[in-house]
Amino acid sequence: MILGWIGTGIMGHSMARHLLDAGYCLNVYNRTKSKATELLNAGAVWCPSPKAVAANADIVFLMVGFPQDVRETILGSQGVLEGLQSNGIIVDMTTSSPTLAQEIEKECRKKNIVSLDAPVSGGDLGAKNATLSIMIGGDKQTAELLTPFWNLMGKTVVYHGASGNGQHAKMVNQILIAGNMIGLCEAILYGFRCGLDMEKVLQSVSGGAAGSWSLTNLAPRICKKDFAPGFMIEHFIKDLGIVLEESQRMGLTLPGLALAEQLYNSAKSKGYAKNGTHALILALEELR
Amino acid sequence: MILGWIGTGIMGHSMARHLLDAGYCLNVYNRTKSKATELLNAGAVWCPSPKAVAANADIVFLMVGFPQDVRETILGSQGVLEGLQSNGIIVDMTTSSPTLAQEIEKECRKKNIVSLDAPVSGGDLGAKNATLSIMIGGDKQTAELLTPFWNLMGKTVVYHGASGNGQHAKMVNQILIAGNMIGLCEAILYGFRCGLDMEKVLQSVSGGAAGSWSLTNLAPRICKKDFAPGFMIEHFIKDLGIVLEESQRMGLTLPGLALAEQLYNSAKSKGYAKNGTHALILALEELR
Repeated sequence: MILGWIGTGIMGHSMARHLLDAGYCLNVYNRTKSKATELLNAGAVWCPSPKAVAANADIVFLMVGFPQDVRETILGSQGVLEGLQSNGIIVDMTTSSPTLAQEIEKECRKKNIVSLDAPVSGGDLGAKNATLSIMIGGDKQTAELLTPFWNLMGKTVVYHGASGNGQHAKMVNQILIAGNMIGLCEAILYGFRCGLDMEKVLQSVSGGAAGSWSLTNLAPRICKKDFAPGFMIEHFIKDLGIVLEESQRMGLTLPGLALAEQLYNSAKSKGYAKNGTHALILALEELR
Repeated sequence: MILGWIGTGIMGHSMARHLLDAGYCLNVYNRTKSKATELLNAGAVWCPSPKAVAANADIVFLMVGFPQDVRETILGSQGVLEGLQSNGIIVDMTTSSPTLAQEIEKECRKKNIVSLDAPVSGGDLGAKNATLSIMIGGDKQTAELLTPFWNLMGKTVVYHGASGNGQHAKMVNQILIAGNMIGLCEAILYGFRCGLDMEKVLQSVSGGAAGSWSLTNLAPRICKKDFAPGFMIEHFIKDLGIVLEESQRMGLTLPGLALAEQLYNSAKSKGYAKNGTHALILALEELR
């Protein structure tokens, strides 16, 4: 069996590596070839395009950047769909648009190809340690067939139903994070302004109803003014935009999410696009 | 030593009971006498006013409703300050205004009385099981002196500095919860609208960066349409109002908190005032 992997950034690189380490033959493509060097040194085969990756592969995995990259990589003139044989499988692990996932699935079906959406959460560490949460949408049988691959990359693997539902589940995750991050940054800002010793405040509030992963993991970084990205603001803005688009389509009003999108865009325009999502506090500080 | 307790609602009743069970003499007063019956049967002494509670007490604890209740109970014509001897101690455990706490402290000092603010988190269960988080502001020595009492009621006891800082720390807690609750309710609303199986989505998202106490404890209740109050919307609105007031005073802009205050007031006006804070989702549902 030959696997293909497209997108060897921080996430994709680690995930592809697990497949390679398990002994699979791996075709790879990335826009910037240098980011694939380590995989190539470990035995992966370089291909000059997504189409070429797919040409002799059985399953092609994607982990690229934006929905337009997903579209181009799969449906473009040098895309996966131009190269993949009938009965092939495409697995898009990029966090991308649910509607686009459905559109791609339809196109694939015409060529007797199965397409799954399988975005992940867990960040670079989750990718490295194969502890990702993988959220799968699309054909159920195919999703089950790929269990050995999911298990090489993730710890929590859940099937969410029809095409696009993996992406929808990931959007639920992002909406949760958005609200929580606003609360976190505003709360710390308030505490700072009151002159509280935030280390002591965290002792008081972390163990109770205000507790969260973000509070435990990001509040201490904020207090140390460490704004290095776990997850980058510019990527989060992409996700918030997808949620707004889908919400509009469904006639759903999400005022908190809309505010988050505004605040994160303001953070971006103030120069924090490459910082972690918790750098929202820097943009909030400048509101006064 | 004689203790006084004013306010025997859901929280105050359980907290006072721990003091009584530890063997202390306890004077009690509550606006609605019937709510003190259990304490009186257990040996507490009924007093007809806050002033009367304080008259022969060494320390008077308060757990009442709103800042105006705190003001009336302590500074009013039948208030604690009219009854308490010099060297007495007042401990306000109500979640109330930091600025009011400072004002009360000043008034008390004139009479050689020490006043501490010591709001709690942990809800009715925390009060019952003596696992509250207690956030203390005011004179440090007095705070330390009262350690045996804190330990009878709480598990996490933290001193936050000058008068009002206990309340400020509690406000940090409430800002965290407000943001998180918007994210939680909007995320579940989005998931419902997509037709996702929310139980499966919770499997995918609870263990990662979107995880929180609210997600673990309240999301399942929302999915079962159980909106009974852990913490009531009308009380949360009080807290959000206090945060906004303090923020205005400090020249601090908290757009997420302001939105939360608007949304919770809309929930109240739609009839959900006596529901739990997670009933916010019902108000959001009606936005479309």
